[in-house]
Amino acid sequence: LNAISIDIGGSHAVCAVVDDRRILASEALPVGDARTFATLLPGLAAAAGRALHAAGIAAPDCAGVAVSFPGIVDPFSGRIFSTPKGKYDDSHTVDLPGWARAAFGLTLRIENDARMALLGECYCGAAQGCEDAVMLTLGTGVGGAVLAGGRLLRGKHLQAGLGGHVPVLFDGRACICGSRGCVEAEASTWALPEICRAWPGFEKSALANEPVLDFAALFRASAANDAVAVAVRDRCLTVWASGAVGLIHSFDPEVFLLGGAVMKSADQILPFVEHYIHTHAWTPWGKVRILPAALGSDAGLLGAIPLLTETRP
Amino acid sequence: LNAISIDIGGSHAVCAVVDDRRILASEALPVGDARTFATLLPGLAAAAGRALHAAGIAAPDCAGVAVSFPGIVDPFSGRIFSTPKGKYDDSHTVDLPGWARAAFGLTLRIENDARMALLGECYCGAAQGCEDAVMLTLGTGVGGAVLAGGRLLRGKHLQAGLGGHVPVLFDGRACICGSRGCVEAEASTWALPEICRAWPGFEKSALANEPVLDFAALFRASAANDAVAVAVRDRCLTVWASGAVGLIHSFDPEVFLLGGAVMKSADQILPFVEHYIHTHAWTPWGKVRILPAALGSDAGLLGAIPLLTETRP
Repeated sequence: LNAISIDIGGSHAVCAVVDDRRILASEALPVGDARTFATLLPGLAAAAGRALHAAGIAAPDCAGVAVSFPGIVDPFSGRIFSTPKGKYDDSHTVDLPGWARAAFGLTLRIENDARMALLGECYCGAAQGCEDAVMLTLGTGVGGAVLAGGRLLRGKHLQAGLGGHVPVLFDGRACICGSRGCVEAEASTWALPEICRAWPGFEKSALANEPVLDFAALFRASAANDAVAVAVRDRCLTVWASGAVGLIHSFDPEVFLLGGAVMKSADQILPFVEHYIHTHAWTPWGKVRILPAALGSDAGLLGAIPLLTETRP
Repeated sequence: LNAISIDIGGSHAVCAVVDDRRILASEALPVGDARTFATLLPGLAAAAGRALHAAGIAAPDCAGVAVSFPGIVDPFSGRIFSTPKGKYDDSHTVDLPGWARAAFGLTLRIENDARMALLGECYCGAAQGCEDAVMLTLGTGVGGAVLAGGRLLRGKHLQAGLGGHVPVLFDGRACICGSRGCVEAEASTWALPEICRAWPGFEKSALANEPVLDFAALFRASAANDAVAVAVRDRCLTVWASGAVGLIHSFDPEVFLLGGAVMKSADQILPFVEHYIHTHAWTPWGKVRILPAALGSDAGLLGAIPLLTETRP
């Protein structure tokens, strides 16, 4: 089965043509300036057209257009309920299914980027064939998605699976979601500089000399036994692991996936999180498999076929 | 539709006959001594038989036998995977569906007690007609159950929705589940005495004179402005509310139900939890309705018809 698959990210959009579990062709275009869909859509159509041509696939031979989007969306109606800050302000009026029909003669479905990545990983990545999986993506924020019995868990208002916004410290730091002590507020790329700078002894730590206080810098300094870096690292690892235990107790999956840009340091993260989960989660049936995501930034694109072939609830 | 509905609790079992949303007759029998199903089942059959007689219903006019059980169970096969400590050690060998067929000529389904209570509340209680609901039961432990799109969320190994075992304090108290800082470990009837006794100033608090350190005692002492009691009460309320926010972000329900014996003090609990959720949960679509369970100990019995009429997944 072929499909046009479009992944709309923060700085770039990727327009691809997929054949089941393979990306046949793709083209990236910058979206940094695109404040509206009206300015973005012609470029997406042109890039998708070139990808079709490069792949040697005609639009009518595609099952549809799949879109991965960083916000809350209705996959079947194509409606968009939330967008990244300052972007796509015309989302309430844009008719994406109409656009796909006009541009390609195809139906369109859209899904949240974290859910698309999980669909991709379960279709042809780390969790291939798995029907009950939870995924956390560690990055600027902490994203979450849940597959339950082979179907995405979407919730009443399409916002289920916000795994990064489960509090693990009830009196903790204020989170951008409005709550306190969420996994994301206690251990994410946006929260890390504040956490480091508030740590006792930060001024004398090697971290104080880092121009960018991200997890790469944290893992570097902790590998060199910087005391503050070791303490902050261990705290972040425990936050992720404790959050994972809560998600496992909530959703009872067989596989727990960790993805996102921070997982470039998977060797610093995975052994700790796996050991913590296996010693703390109550799973009398056996052990949840803890796996790193395998598809990287291709995961969302490869969720296209499972999204387009999903039967309506 | 009629059914035999059996609720197996810690000290008593109740055998009832229900007609859709009404309990027509019921009989309680003590189960404190019953260490095995082998010793329990004849008494249950006799009590259910008397309930049928009192209701004027013949067994063949029932849709089946529904059982609410405090453990992890497979509703369709009738298998039991976990039991309360020291009870029903023969659960691995007992054939409950065979028993129901022999005793009444009826099919049997069994479900976890927290899930049965949620089914009852959504069928004819506080959340009647609701298809997306999360329930926490505050009692000796903290139970949880989730209805998603009109169906119970059971998970891969039938243990999804363990809402009381979501950590809200990643470095908190050891929980009986093996994790740390779970809602149940930080605010439940079993944990409360330890929490109070470890609180600075406990010896001089009015709580030190209470023969039983339960939530009734805590709310009494805090109403009298005992400083330790006020502090412990506020902490427990925040733990429940923070846990509720995590469950709302995980499951995206329209209704959040609070039940269990501790909710006898609902007037001390509900306003705080409701306000906390409405100020902390990210629900751009509107507000989750926060409701006290309405059916009390009848909830599980009244889950019988939705359980027996559920289509298989």
